[in-house]
Amino acid sequence: MDVADLSPAQARERFRTGERVPTAGWCRSWTQANLIAVPSELRYELLLFAHRNPQACPVLDVGEPGVWSTELFSGDLRTDLPGYRLYRDGRAVADLDDVVAEWRADLVPFLIGCSFTFERALLAAGVPVRHLEAGTNVPMYVTSIPCESTGSLAGPLVVSMRPVPEELVATAVEVSGRYPSVHGAPVHTGDPAAIGVENLAAPDYGDPVEVRAGEVPLFWACGVTPQQAVLASGVPYAIGHLPGHMAIMDVRDDHYRVA
Amino acid sequence: MDVADLSPAQARERFRTGERVPTAGWCRSWTQANLIAVPSELRYELLLFAHRNPQACPVLDVGEPGVWSTELFSGDLRTDLPGYRLYRDGRAVADLDDVVAEWRADLVPFLIGCSFTFERALLAAGVPVRHLEAGTNVPMYVTSIPCESTGSLAGPLVVSMRPVPEELVATAVEVSGRYPSVHGAPVHTGDPAAIGVENLAAPDYGDPVEVRAGEVPLFWACGVTPQQAVLASGVPYAIGHLPGHMAIMDVRDDHYRVA
Repeated sequence: MDVADLSPAQARERFRTGERVPTAGWCRSWTQANLIAVPSELRYELLLFAHRNPQACPVLDVGEPGVWSTELFSGDLRTDLPGYRLYRDGRAVADLDDVVAEWRADLVPFLIGCSFTFERALLAAGVPVRHLEAGTNVPMYVTSIPCESTGSLAGPLVVSMRPVPEELVATAVEVSGRYPSVHGAPVHTGDPAAIGVENLAAPDYGDPVEVRAGEVPLFWACGVTPQQAVLASGVPYAIGHLPGHMAIMDVRDDHYRVA
Repeated sequence: MDVADLSPAQARERFRTGERVPTAGWCRSWTQANLIAVPSELRYELLLFAHRNPQACPVLDVGEPGVWSTELFSGDLRTDLPGYRLYRDGRAVADLDDVVAEWRADLVPFLIGCSFTFERALLAAGVPVRHLEAGTNVPMYVTSIPCESTGSLAGPLVVSMRPVPEELVATAVEVSGRYPSVHGAPVHTGDPAAIGVENLAAPDYGDPVEVRAGEVPLFWACGVTPQQAVLASGVPYAIGHLPGHMAIMDVRDDHYRVA
């Protein structure tokens, strides 16, 4: 069965039983989301950070402290993503297949929009998506653009990149712009150096993709940004997803499409 | 000097020295905002409540605990609004000219968008605004529409009402819809009973206005909604503005206009 045809529940079952794989292209028409879970005493700071950086950190759902499912994610947030990253004192200390043992009772999970959600719409509009063609993870880069900070959270914007043929740039901007809750239109188009990205061939997260002659790199705000803030701000304890290895939600991508 | 021509600083000076008056029509082209200040232990709940009810509770700015000015409000939040309402244990216990003595060190102030901000645009589009013509406060009503709740905050949606000639309803919807951060388009048009409003002549807050033959009542989400949640949820301590007696911000109304 093509992974695009799986239901969210079927995909979660595969991830729960050990498959560690990027989720671009999985579960066509379903929304995907980033996970960041922080101790309860940091939940206000994280929600305020998201509010101040809505394009990078669109909050789709928030859980209660210690609870591992939410209104829009009926699975188990501790096991049903294909990969997790554990943070202590501002360092990534482990990549894990599940975080059952690490899910402290005071953790509050936030589900943040992901640009994989509008890739179906890009394809439908005739915009090719290179990492889908290649079967790899999307390339992500830490930029030189600072986020709006809060008292205890600060960090740079992280972006995902898709190379788009020049003649389709406007289409890609317009189509993704219809999904403002899952990052919307690109934050930058063209020269990577202008946003502090030195080398497209060496992404900070995910896999590199080929940029062909006549193609322009388009950069979208990325929901890994809160994890970068956790790193930059020395947060004592947090759990994120492995970049590109998303939570597949119980809500359709069309739900986030605006007219 | 016409109050429409005052700068925010000039208006705040007048409120600080004792003028208690609704602010509709004051400081043309400047943004107005609702105030709700809650103890620090409730700030997450309030921010989450606002996030879940964005049309009623668009957060324009948030202050640090105990601080009485913010990035977008350079005045003194304890004195520079024309009127305040003090809440204890879910009851309104006093209306005050200032809250210097009541501003506890753990209070976190939230400034929430106000529909007065788009009234200049309504007038410019030829839509009359009855309470401006009458020189009274806008009428506000507690509806039967429940807000999305959080663990400890729940309550009904509050709306403001403006009667609009039938032939201008579409214009009023379109023009206010360009200001989504200050409540945007109406939440309801027409029959008040459909949203639980029994008697237009007896608003829950503000003053009644005449609805003339050929006019339709238009109802907009109102930033008094968080104060209604404070009442409905038995919040131990909070400070709000007197409804219609707003904070006048250091940011232009055009800042919240979208294309």
